[in-house]
Amino acid sequence: MINITLPDGSVRSYENEITAKDVAKDISEGFARNVISAKFNDKVIETATTLTEDGSLILYTWRDNDGKKAFWHSSSHILAQALEELYPGVKLTIGPAIENGFYYDVDLGEYTISDKDFKSIEAKMLEIARGKHDFKMKSVSKADALSFYKNQVNEYKVELIENLEDGDITFCDHSTFTDLCRGGHIPNTGIVKAVKVLSVAGAYWRGDENKKQLTRVYGISFPKQKDLKEYLELLEEAKKRDHRKLGKQLELFTFSQKVGQGLPLWLPKGTSLRNRLEDFLKKAQQKAGYEMVITPHIGQKELYITSGHYAKYGEDSFQPIKTPKLDEEFLLKPMNCPHHCEIYNSKPWSYKELPKRYAEFGTVYRYEQSGELHGLTRVRGFTQDDAHIFCTPDQLDAEFKKVIDLVLYVFGSLGFDNFTAQVSVRDLENPEKYIGAPENWEKAEQAIINAAKDKSLDFVIESGEAAFYGPKLDFMVKDALGRQWQLGTIQVDYNLPERFELSYKGSDNELHRPVMIHRAPFGSMERFIAILLEHTAGNFPLWLIPEQVIILTISEKYEKYAEKVLNLLENNEIRAHVDNRNETMGKKIRDAELNKIPFMIIVGENEEKENRISVRRHGGEDLGMISVVDFSEIVENEISKTLKQF
Amino acid sequence: MINITLPDGSVRSYENEITAKDVAKDISEGFARNVISAKFNDKVIETATTLTEDGSLILYTWRDNDGKKAFWHSSSHILAQALEELYPGVKLTIGPAIENGFYYDVDLGEYTISDKDFKSIEAKMLEIARGKHDFKMKSVSKADALSFYKNQVNEYKVELIENLEDGDITFCDHSTFTDLCRGGHIPNTGIVKAVKVLSVAGAYWRGDENKKQLTRVYGISFPKQKDLKEYLELLEEAKKRDHRKLGKQLELFTFSQKVGQGLPLWLPKGTSLRNRLEDFLKKAQQKAGYEMVITPHIGQKELYITSGHYAKYGEDSFQPIKTPKLDEEFLLKPMNCPHHCEIYNSKPWSYKELPKRYAEFGTVYRYEQSGELHGLTRVRGFTQDDAHIFCTPDQLDAEFKKVIDLVLYVFGSLGFDNFTAQVSVRDLENPEKYIGAPENWEKAEQAIINAAKDKSLDFVIESGEAAFYGPKLDFMVKDALGRQWQLGTIQVDYNLPERFELSYKGSDNELHRPVMIHRAPFGSMERFIAILLEHTAGNFPLWLIPEQVIILTISEKYEKYAEKVLNLLENNEIRAHVDNRNETMGKKIRDAELNKIPFMIIVGENEEKENRISVRRHGGEDLGMISVVDFSEIVENEISKTLKQF
Repeated sequence: MINITLPDGSVRSYENEITAKDVAKDISEGFARNVISAKFNDKVIETATTLTEDGSLILYTWRDNDGKKAFWHSSSHILAQALEELYPGVKLTIGPAIENGFYYDVDLGEYTISDKDFKSIEAKMLEIARGKHDFKMKSVSKADALSFYKNQVNEYKVELIENLEDGDITFCDHSTFTDLCRGGHIPNTGIVKAVKVLSVAGAYWRGDENKKQLTRVYGISFPKQKDLKEYLELLEEAKKRDHRKLGKQLELFTFSQKVGQGLPLWLPKGTSLRNRLEDFLKKAQQKAGYEMVITPHIGQKELYITSGHYAKYGEDSFQPIKTPKLDEEFLLKPMNCPHHCEIYNSKPWSYKELPKRYAEFGTVYRYEQSGELHGLTRVRGFTQDDAHIFCTPDQLDAEFKKVIDLVLYVFGSLGFDNFTAQVSVRDLENPEKYIGAPENWEKAEQAIINAAKDKSLDFVIESGEAAFYGPKLDFMVKDALGRQWQLGTIQVDYNLPERFELSYKGSDNELHRPVMIHRAPFGSMERFIAILLEHTAGNFPLWLIPEQVIILTISEKYEKYAEKVLNLLENNEIRAHVDNRNETMGKKIRDAELNKIPFMIIVGENEEKENRISVRRHGGEDLGMISVVDFSEIVENEISKTLKQF
Repeated sequence: MINITLPDGSVRSYENEITAKDVAKDISEGFARNVISAKFNDKVIETATTLTEDGSLILYTWRDNDGKKAFWHSSSHILAQALEELYPGVKLTIGPAIENGFYYDVDLGEYTISDKDFKSIEAKMLEIARGKHDFKMKSVSKADALSFYKNQVNEYKVELIENLEDGDITFCDHSTFTDLCRGGHIPNTGIVKAVKVLSVAGAYWRGDENKKQLTRVYGISFPKQKDLKEYLELLEEAKKRDHRKLGKQLELFTFSQKVGQGLPLWLPKGTSLRNRLEDFLKKAQQKAGYEMVITPHIGQKELYITSGHYAKYGEDSFQPIKTPKLDEEFLLKPMNCPHHCEIYNSKPWSYKELPKRYAEFGTVYRYEQSGELHGLTRVRGFTQDDAHIFCTPDQLDAEFKKVIDLVLYVFGSLGFDNFTAQVSVRDLENPEKYIGAPENWEKAEQAIINAAKDKSLDFVIESGEAAFYGPKLDFMVKDALGRQWQLGTIQVDYNLPERFELSYKGSDNELHRPVMIHRAPFGSMERFIAILLEHTAGNFPLWLIPEQVIILTISEKYEKYAEKVLNLLENNEIRAHVDNRNETMGKKIRDAELNKIPFMIIVGENEEKENRISVRRHGGEDLGMISVVDFSEIVENEISKTLKQF
């Protein structure tokens, strides 16, 4: 008898050994048809693997991330076979599944591959796939494995095998192809119905720039042609929305080789946007009882030794700043919290004065390898919409709810309607991993869960995902292209209050440690604006967009009237400017469209005579000839639809 | 015949040698009575010195800085004699005049001096002064000078003399006292009518902490008792207004040993004040056509090599920040201009698009020795209200006028009514010292002078005071205590446009170099707020002060009514909060006075019944029981008196 436990907790008992696939069939034939991979007792297996003992079984379909992983890993075998057949003698190295698709690193020898070759590779892959070859795992002795690849003169696989233990080595066969492989495949190649070779790039063997440069072939595959089509459309749309491209086109930010990589320079329009975003949050924060502070961008090394950040960021980040005096050393701040702890520590507190909520748009600096930098999403200097709340353990519950309100207000005002939350709590089996009293942890975790429930969040609880210093709540936002981004963190901290010896006098007249909450609804201004740019394709909410209106003159004769209209709009706090260039109306409208300006106002003879304006929306909708007052009302109404009072 | 040229250019000819004093008498007996020191051919002389050749003579009275210097230097001789007489055997070292008064460093041997001894030193000094002893210079051979001080067993003077050239050594005698001295005295001790020993401090011989610690005795002296009295009152008032004291009392900013010296942490009230000040300037700048930008606080070392700042700040400042990758080095930015040049350089410009005016509240970092740090006026990190205007040479005139308008608007809104300006131009005799075409310099200097005249500034022109890269205009502001502060600089720059190869396409379709203007009306936010704090003694202009109103409840019963009043005030954008502590009204009023809150609103039974408020001004004036509406109007009127629209 073997007992198989399924994820829902149900147990199925079988008299004999049974394959994962057969368990699936036992559940339902229809389900079994969709099962493409499995995990048994936390170990990836094949669906054909025979289960010989009791254990937990998870069966995956394409809809699961683990299912996709097996699908793409298997597809990389097909890619490898195709490459071997098309380019005889190439040497294979490794070929894993990645977040979207897979790649294979190959030593092409004398061959080169360019995008002209992608079609024929795809055709060969599909030909192999259609053969419906089963993926079959087999154990191989180290000696046999080495001899197999020495025979192929593949020094890369030989090197890989030399580092493996004899007895742990497996190969995977399908069709005429064999590869060194740890397992985790779909049943057969026939499930792969659509493939696309996406790109080729250089990649060093083992990521070491002193070693041989290989060719990395990226691809993706799907169980349906339709899925591939959708994916390619998404890719196309994502390319159009790339914030680096839009940021340049809309003149929001730039980079300078002289200033340095990963250090954005905010251009006037980007600064205006960013300042408006900051002012929006400042206003809400003021209402929520936050107080703004300003702290320097450096601190003595000792400050970060106290906080523990030096141990964390020290070696891999910007190095200490020495001074002409030898015993003074400073660090660029990687976080604002130590400074805020020192502000808290600048005077004694009574429980009656708590919570204190210190907020700062604090710019922090962290070194990233230049290869990891990416537009505004991965930079070396960024500004956090940071705040630290110092409160008593009893205040945690109320404070957490208030922070969630603020985060939801921010998301709502910016058009992120699709999000989930994750509560990260302790691993109760390893209590020694965490700092802080268990009763406080209990209180904090309950506070977070209560708050999440109270605010009707769609959330999951993840055990063991808490940081060693406290539990937290993260928001995951889905953008217009369906991509997930982690935005907005609320984190409880028992560690820094200890390290900085923070205290307050309780009603018992004794000194107690406050609890600290770190929170940042945007996270980083840079990353948030990048995501917002891609989410909206540059069509920012009307209240936020740098230029709301452009006034297009039919000819230079109407400049004066245009100026009059501009003044009226400015009096109504509408951000506008005049395009009085000596260009055709068609050209002016095209430029305004490119610049994503929500409203175009056209002024000419009729408009001036009637003291009105002709209004056209971005995208083409014609609002006709109306008064400036009516137009202002339209703008105001539109803004109040997304931008509510906090 | 000798010809003596006076500062007004007039020449007086004498048949024989003549003393400086006699030239003064020749001008006017009355003037001569006030002359206390002189300079001949740029060399400090005594008034009794005989002029034996043609040359330029300047005669100084107490009103001149050079006169004060001679007065205080002479007073340090009197102090030295007094110390020798009171503490026989002390060893004198050096005793110069300083900005306010003088000091003498002495090796007191077994003696100590504390403030209890100041009275007797002052008495002894006045006794010597009243003797009307002439100060008499004499040349001494090196051998005689050494033997004089070896005889006294004064190793300090011996060390000083050993470093002097034989033939260059002079002593000064007065009364029974002799001192090694280079000269520059008032005629006799009798002119000193009032003296004050201010403090004693430790000071290392030759400023070297490995050498012997001496006692530095600070003093000041005046030609009239009344002057001393006024000075001491000013000192007392300045102490009360010390921004470090007020900043702590009003909870504006703090420092932390852990974060580091000279790195201010802005507390909530200070941040609110500073943000309001920044917003005020932002608003005016927006109207004046500036565009805000944001740039990082670091830049690659190469950036500052290009700009020339590395050569200027490199060795003495914060050292380069190394990274895990060896070939990358960054610097904390000492100035914002290089970053703004790179923003200008991020796209090509046409003359039609100029001027570009980039503004940023940019925080910069410069290392200062810890001994030189002082509250917010001398710090290691500060935020400039920086802007850089890129314009054509022809636009300089108009741009300069606009910048002056902005600076005057800032001063006016903050109660600095008393200021002068200085235009620093080239030294025409040394044209090789300057970068940039002479015709552009001519244009720029004329533009500045025209603008200063046009705006009716009280200004002086200083030849040779321009920086090598361009002429400038500085504003000197007098505060409420009559102290002068340099605030607001407008600087033309021909250098950075060259170094960064900035260009624009002119109407001739050729590339030209723009001119750059650096300007900062506040200078540094930190220093400006410190000066404003001392100028106003913390009684900031009503529009700026963090807390405009405090609502004092007569008892806790009226908390609800107080909250209602608070809401009404907040709706009228008046910054208020409630003091509902269980304290007496007297105590609440005293605390509000200490916190410099301009208006106190008292609410109790009568007020609630009549739906009114009792209002008391800071300082005591009673405005009676009025409605919230009337009160709001008073506040609004008061604000609009100082804060005008730009």
